[in-house]
Amino acid sequence: MARIVHKYYLFILLSFLILHSYSTLAHSKKLNEKKPCKRFVLYYHDILFNGTDVANATSAATTNPSKLGHYLGMLVVFDDPITKDNHLLSPPVARAQGFYFYDMKAKYNAWFSYTLIFNSSEHKGTINIMGADMMDEETRDFSVVGGTGDFFMTRGIATIRTDEVQGDFYFRLQMDIKLYECY
Amino acid sequence: MARIVHKYYLFILLSFLILHSYSTLAHSKKLNEKKPCKRFVLYYHDILFNGTDVANATSAATTNPSKLGHYLGMLVVFDDPITKDNHLLSPPVARAQGFYFYDMKAKYNAWFSYTLIFNSSEHKGTINIMGADMMDEETRDFSVVGGTGDFFMTRGIATIRTDEVQGDFYFRLQMDIKLYECY
Amino acid sequence: MARIVHKYYLFILLSFLILHSYSTLAHSKKLNEKKPCKRFVLYYHDILFNGTDVANATSAATTNPSKLGHYLGMLVVFDDPITKDNHLLSPPVARAQGFYFYDMKAKYNAWFSYTLIFNSSEHKGTINIMGADMMDEETRDFSVVGGTGDFFMTRGIATIRTDEVQGDFYFRLQMDIKLYECY
Repeated sequence: MARIVHKYYLFILLSFLILHSYSTLAHSKKLNEKKPCKRFVLYYHDILFNGTDVANATSAATTNPSKLGHYLGMLVVFDDPITKDNHLLSPPVARAQGFYFYDMKAKYNAWFSYTLIFNSSEHKGTINIMGADMMDEETRDFSVVGGTGDFFMTRGIATIRTDEVQGDFYFRLQMDIKLYECY
Repeated sequence: MARIVHKYYLFILLSFLILHSYSTLAHSKKLNEKKPCKRFVLYYHDILFNGTDVANATSAATTNPSKLGHYLGMLVVFDDPITKDNHLLSPPVARAQGFYFYDMKAKYNAWFSYTLIFNSSEHKGTINIMGADMMDEETRDFSVVGGTGDFFMTRGIATIRTDEVQGDFYFRLQMDIKLYECY
Repeated sequence: MARIVHKYYLFILLSFLILHSYSTLAHSKKLNEKKPCKRFVLYYHDILFNGTDVANATSAATTNPSKLGHYLGMLVVFDDPITKDNHLLSPPVARAQGFYFYDMKAKYNAWFSYTLIFNSSEHKGTINIMGADMMDEETRDFSVVGGTGDFFMTRGIATIRTDEVQGDFYFRLQMDIKLYECY
């Protein structure tokens, strides 16, 4: 009897170890770029204060550009409406609060850090985002570094695309938000 | 003999798979908002430089507010003492270094990003935090996005509550820090 | 027969549970500070705009220091070259875009947030970093809070060492980047 137990035991132990090492491997690669656990597309509208249009402005420059060119050094603080489609006047589903600044001499390039704030019947909570905005690339990726409320502890990628630019005072970004950690 | 082995093998394999799928499921939900792996409450004291009080000031505005109202655009850099109770003069257990700025037209609202720096016999290391401060809500949640030293690779939530405001130059926040990833 | 099955079943179930609780324990401590999944050393070069040297400058102050001392309140925006060795003129392997500001009264101390942007045959993608720069310490740790592209969803620690300071307008940091989450 003891021998049989021993035999089976080894047999199953081996099976277990093989299966488990496989599952551990799978775990260390558990995130698949193509399979977010949550995904949604939003539009970000920024209307920069031009010095007079207090009513419509959603952002304001707090520093002047340096003399290095392409607005390098201009820092803008914003409280921007977020909509589900690309219409500025659609009902906002969230706010984006944070800042961006321009940081390149040779061309327009920006850097962003902000919070998406959801406070509707659909979603309550925040998503924190940061990253470099290489404006001459068709799309660029920001990091979703944390979340709260409905987005408790989330992480992911926000893929940004410039959807519209109107002069110096309005631009719109499409944000394709892909979350890979959902709890 | 072979048949018995076969039988048991299948039997156990099945048990294993059932148990394992259960454990995998549990893993994908491994973070429980109510069960942080570490939790502590700290108080943050900010004494804004009023132009003369160099000795006591712990922060300074580096930009002026825009004309959009409610200090929108004013950016403040700080090196603030952190205490375990709500007394400004209690011995600091950490420093908070970072910045906040005001970002709303219609009411007071801020955005924070900072590092808690611990350098005592109790804790050595840092915790990095960011988030939107919706000042008219009783509490609001920031994201703990990383840590170093004793807080190596941590993540979590810092729940903020305004504990005191004295005029334009002193305010105190209670920070209830809940860490969900501890290594 | 049923009794034997029962016996084995319990036996193996027990083995499984013991092994599994061990593996779960291991998992909750899965990150070992000494064993990053990726590691590389880079050098960061910052040439602050002095008001005339547009050609060479890689960064610019966008705010003036306050009167609290040690440049507290001066915020600098940068687009700095990153090299593999400590020579400013070596071919850059990445750019660092972001900002730092000084935040202490009593000594020089800074706070950084930036993105490393890789766009070479070796690496494409970004790494997002933030942390407090206690300049009088030999080394200090920033948090790697996210990544994109080749660094999809990464997290880790960037250990910073001041490698060179030349007057007020050039400094070089060594960044020892250790990633603990690789996908």
